[in-house]
Amino acid sequence: MKAWCVSRGWVDGLFMVLLLNFALTTEARAQIRHYQWKVDYLYFSPDCIEKVIIAINGQYPGPTIRAHAGDTIVVELQNFLPTAGVVIHWHGIHQIGTPWFDGTAFVSQCPINPGETFTYKFIVDRAGTFFYHGHIGMQRAAGLYGSLIVDLRHGEKEPFAYDGDLRIAINDWWHRSVYDQETGLISIPFRFVGDPQSLLIEGRGRYNCSLVPTSFVLGSGDCVNCNISNPQCQPFVLPVEPGKTYRLRIANVASLSSLNFILEGHKLTIVEADGYYVDPVVVENLDLYSGETYSVLFTANQDASRNYWAAINVRGRKSSTPTGLAVLNYLLNPSSMLPSTPSPVSPAWNDFDYSLNQSKLILARKGYEVPPPAKADRELIFLTTQNKIDGRIKWAINNITYAPTSTPVLAALKYGWKKAYDLNPPPDYPSRPFNISAPPPNVNAKFGSGVYKFQFDSVVDVIIQNTNTLNPNNSEIHPWHLHGHDFWVLGHGKGVFHPATDSQSYNLKNAPLKNTVAVFPYGWVALRFRADNPGVWPFHCHIEAHLHMGMGVIFAEGWDRLPKLPKSILGCGLSKFYIP
Amino acid sequence: MKAWCVSRGWVDGLFMVLLLNFALTTEARAQIRHYQWKVDYLYFSPDCIEKVIIAINGQYPGPTIRAHAGDTIVVELQNFLPTAGVVIHWHGIHQIGTPWFDGTAFVSQCPINPGETFTYKFIVDRAGTFFYHGHIGMQRAAGLYGSLIVDLRHGEKEPFAYDGDLRIAINDWWHRSVYDQETGLISIPFRFVGDPQSLLIEGRGRYNCSLVPTSFVLGSGDCVNCNISNPQCQPFVLPVEPGKTYRLRIANVASLSSLNFILEGHKLTIVEADGYYVDPVVVENLDLYSGETYSVLFTANQDASRNYWAAINVRGRKSSTPTGLAVLNYLLNPSSMLPSTPSPVSPAWNDFDYSLNQSKLILARKGYEVPPPAKADRELIFLTTQNKIDGRIKWAINNITYAPTSTPVLAALKYGWKKAYDLNPPPDYPSRPFNISAPPPNVNAKFGSGVYKFQFDSVVDVIIQNTNTLNPNNSEIHPWHLHGHDFWVLGHGKGVFHPATDSQSYNLKNAPLKNTVAVFPYGWVALRFRADNPGVWPFHCHIEAHLHMGMGVIFAEGWDRLPKLPKSILGCGLSKFYIP
Repeated sequence: MKAWCVSRGWVDGLFMVLLLNFALTTEARAQIRHYQWKVDYLYFSPDCIEKVIIAINGQYPGPTIRAHAGDTIVVELQNFLPTAGVVIHWHGIHQIGTPWFDGTAFVSQCPINPGETFTYKFIVDRAGTFFYHGHIGMQRAAGLYGSLIVDLRHGEKEPFAYDGDLRIAINDWWHRSVYDQETGLISIPFRFVGDPQSLLIEGRGRYNCSLVPTSFVLGSGDCVNCNISNPQCQPFVLPVEPGKTYRLRIANVASLSSLNFILEGHKLTIVEADGYYVDPVVVENLDLYSGETYSVLFTANQDASRNYWAAINVRGRKSSTPTGLAVLNYLLNPSSMLPSTPSPVSPAWNDFDYSLNQSKLILARKGYEVPPPAKADRELIFLTTQNKIDGRIKWAINNITYAPTSTPVLAALKYGWKKAYDLNPPPDYPSRPFNISAPPPNVNAKFGSGVYKFQFDSVVDVIIQNTNTLNPNNSEIHPWHLHGHDFWVLGHGKGVFHPATDSQSYNLKNAPLKNTVAVFPYGWVALRFRADNPGVWPFHCHIEAHLHMGMGVIFAEGWDRLPKLPKSILGCGLSKFYIP
Repeated sequence: MKAWCVSRGWVDGLFMVLLLNFALTTEARAQIRHYQWKVDYLYFSPDCIEKVIIAINGQYPGPTIRAHAGDTIVVELQNFLPTAGVVIHWHGIHQIGTPWFDGTAFVSQCPINPGETFTYKFIVDRAGTFFYHGHIGMQRAAGLYGSLIVDLRHGEKEPFAYDGDLRIAINDWWHRSVYDQETGLISIPFRFVGDPQSLLIEGRGRYNCSLVPTSFVLGSGDCVNCNISNPQCQPFVLPVEPGKTYRLRIANVASLSSLNFILEGHKLTIVEADGYYVDPVVVENLDLYSGETYSVLFTANQDASRNYWAAINVRGRKSSTPTGLAVLNYLLNPSSMLPSTPSPVSPAWNDFDYSLNQSKLILARKGYEVPPPAKADRELIFLTTQNKIDGRIKWAINNITYAPTSTPVLAALKYGWKKAYDLNPPPDYPSRPFNISAPPPNVNAKFGSGVYKFQFDSVVDVIIQNTNTLNPNNSEIHPWHLHGHDFWVLGHGKGVFHPATDSQSYNLKNAPLKNTVAVFPYGWVALRFRADNPGVWPFHCHIEAHLHMGMGVIFAEGWDRLPKLPKSILGCGLSKFYIP
């Protein structure tokens, strides 16, 4: 003890030197990674049927960004689309200090106009499996997305071992254009695009060309040239060496679908969710909701003389869409050797208990827990309902359907442009009693663009309460995604959330941190986050159609702490009149 | 004489009083006409096949604007498209004093962003048959157009008599989306959308539903629900009373096609072209090129017990597209009584002499001639060629393919933003010897966004020289349209324009004033105009695909005389950084 006391000053000094050295080293090693992207339309055949997609540098999916935590990403994006604006959201990146580069049209920035070049520049603040995607209209569903993988800072180590690092983005795919899909959503009567035609693994699937009319010719529509030997729709290949262990990173970038992932004959150990280590859980298959990312470990410990299916199936909605398939390729088998085994089968689409139970398995990894604050400063209860406005079907939160502004809300708050959005904040609680088990008695909602403003550094609870849709005996999964933050998932429940009792069961010990979480049919989920990131942040259902139908809100905190905004994000709506 | 001299002062005074009175009267009568437009996608079936169109207030074609010369048109346009910008060009309106409301994206203004409301406000300076249409990407071809009819000032009279005033806009129609069409134009290899599926008269045609595969289902593409009893595709009806004479206004708003109009059994007397009276000519049928408008008179002097076809056929391109048909309905026959006679047949598609001869018939009406200035201050010779850039097919003028800027050129010139466009003006003459009869030996062109700047009030001649395309033995019709001005058509010719000799044959007496004129295959056309309208004005081929492929130039004059520009037109490109 004495020696310790005597040497304390010296030890402290050494610690500081080491810390400084470490900081300098990592600082010195932190890189600036430059990318130049050209966004344009492209004919592409992800499932062997050709259609117009939105591609980056002629690629689909877009180029993978890979960086180390602490690196700065610089993306110079030039928009070559003839009429449409573009933005890119960096899903899971917190944009600390750069909320204007969050890439949400009319929230963090104006759309990048045709012909313009816009430069995103931000630090990837932590390691994990992320992705990026368009965040205006339904451009993600048109193909505008890619992987964003952040490795640990140099010198840091993962708490699990693996020999190889693989990644896939998984999604659903329609032959109708997103313009057509968007039009259906605003039509009276409502027209839903229906089941996806295909499920894609890393942008590849396979449609049954015999389903295409033989007389289907150029000039008759958007989908032509069904050709199953097209290289663009050959199954994606995951190459593995027998006996080795792999980390497989999976991002669900789907427009709509909850997807169940299976690696035929191989168990999966979940180790990461949305960029955080989770307590390892071994599962036969993995549910991923749109907006979620996971890392799983698996060992190539099966019969090495054959290949295996990597498969995705729709969950949560009754669907006729065939299984999406990729090939787990045991080297040295040829990658073209398709398994003769049938497509793997997932749990029943409506086995919601299975889904709920798997969600409850996701907990912070021991030793890496970041316990949530013990209590919240403010509680929001979001009654999410399907409604109508002027005869059009919408989604609403406490009876408000989000109507996008034409001015970036970030600028409106920062500069006090009061005509740019609804000054009345939307309600913290449902405005009237409700019954979640039946269609709403009064279906009419109201448009709003109000903002939930939080005291800086305050702790916020959000309870999302799911309900019956406009159709009797129907309630849908909604994966809610928060920008600029992660939240602790305090608990899931069935039926109506009862504040007094249900809050007693919150997990305050090893609640997982996530940026996306699903609320299940007729259920609720409770989240907590700290409003400590100055900016304006959407919180919304990650289903493209649902967001397009108004299922989102805007959170904001600390906007008065921000410096002058870059002019590059302005120019639309009122900002052209007021640019400071 | 003496009395006259004595009374001169009094007569002058009376004249001034009358003039003032007239001015006050017309001034007092000049109206402000307000319109509120919502632009959005809509499922529509113009030819019985349903697809997504761009509609105004749920209408296709868009609402007709009808005004008197001198009236002020105010259009508040709100853009409901989820991702695309919108602008509206008022085709044939000079925008004197309001060049910022000419409605050309990135020339006169920034696109109107999704969610924004933009107000156009301009005076219709003269009477005539005009139209309006989208002028970004290929939005006109997506259905974004309508008629703009300007009647004479109150108290003025037409130099011809008629009992009724009818109007139609005619165009070509594809089932593929314009996004698909645009993608084809930038693809390698080039993919042209091919023949239109239908020809429409006032937005209505009829596709043969038996050509649609029976197994063609929702989810397979953009075109569905072929239904020939759909009211949206019933033939347009032109109702007439037997024995009466009608003025029929026709606007060719086609994306591509030169269209020949026939009124079965009725002769047509051409009386107006592009808003100017022309010397009356009687024709059996009328060629109209995209961007042209005409008025014809006809008398309902045929057997009144039946109806007749109004018909349009493609000219200038070999086409398999069926005749577009409307019904000339002799009252009191039912309008549903379709003629049993076959569809009218137009001159052979490649009878270019017919086309040329008809163009030469169009001359200024006697007594209304406005002779062109005797000579020009500057002469431009535009060698228009089909070329390639980076393997993509383009069109070029003197080897420059127009590349749109991302900043409105009007603002760039007015405010001296030199980085916003190419400061080097494009060449006044072809840069090297050429052979118009064969594909160009060196196919490569260059992108450019330079501006032809004219001394204010100077007289400019433009000779457009047509050439062989990249394919042997092929040369195409190009209808050239000038914004902000009309031009005198001094002459048409075959083969290569020879300045010394061909200029001798210019019509300086009764040359017609027009805003659009066709140059025929392997031929030339010579135009003259006075650069007396301060602003920045595109001059381009009116074929959507050709403009998209760079077939245009920018003219400018007197921009330094303009007042501060409205901020509403800014916000894109460099303007967001420099907004004054």
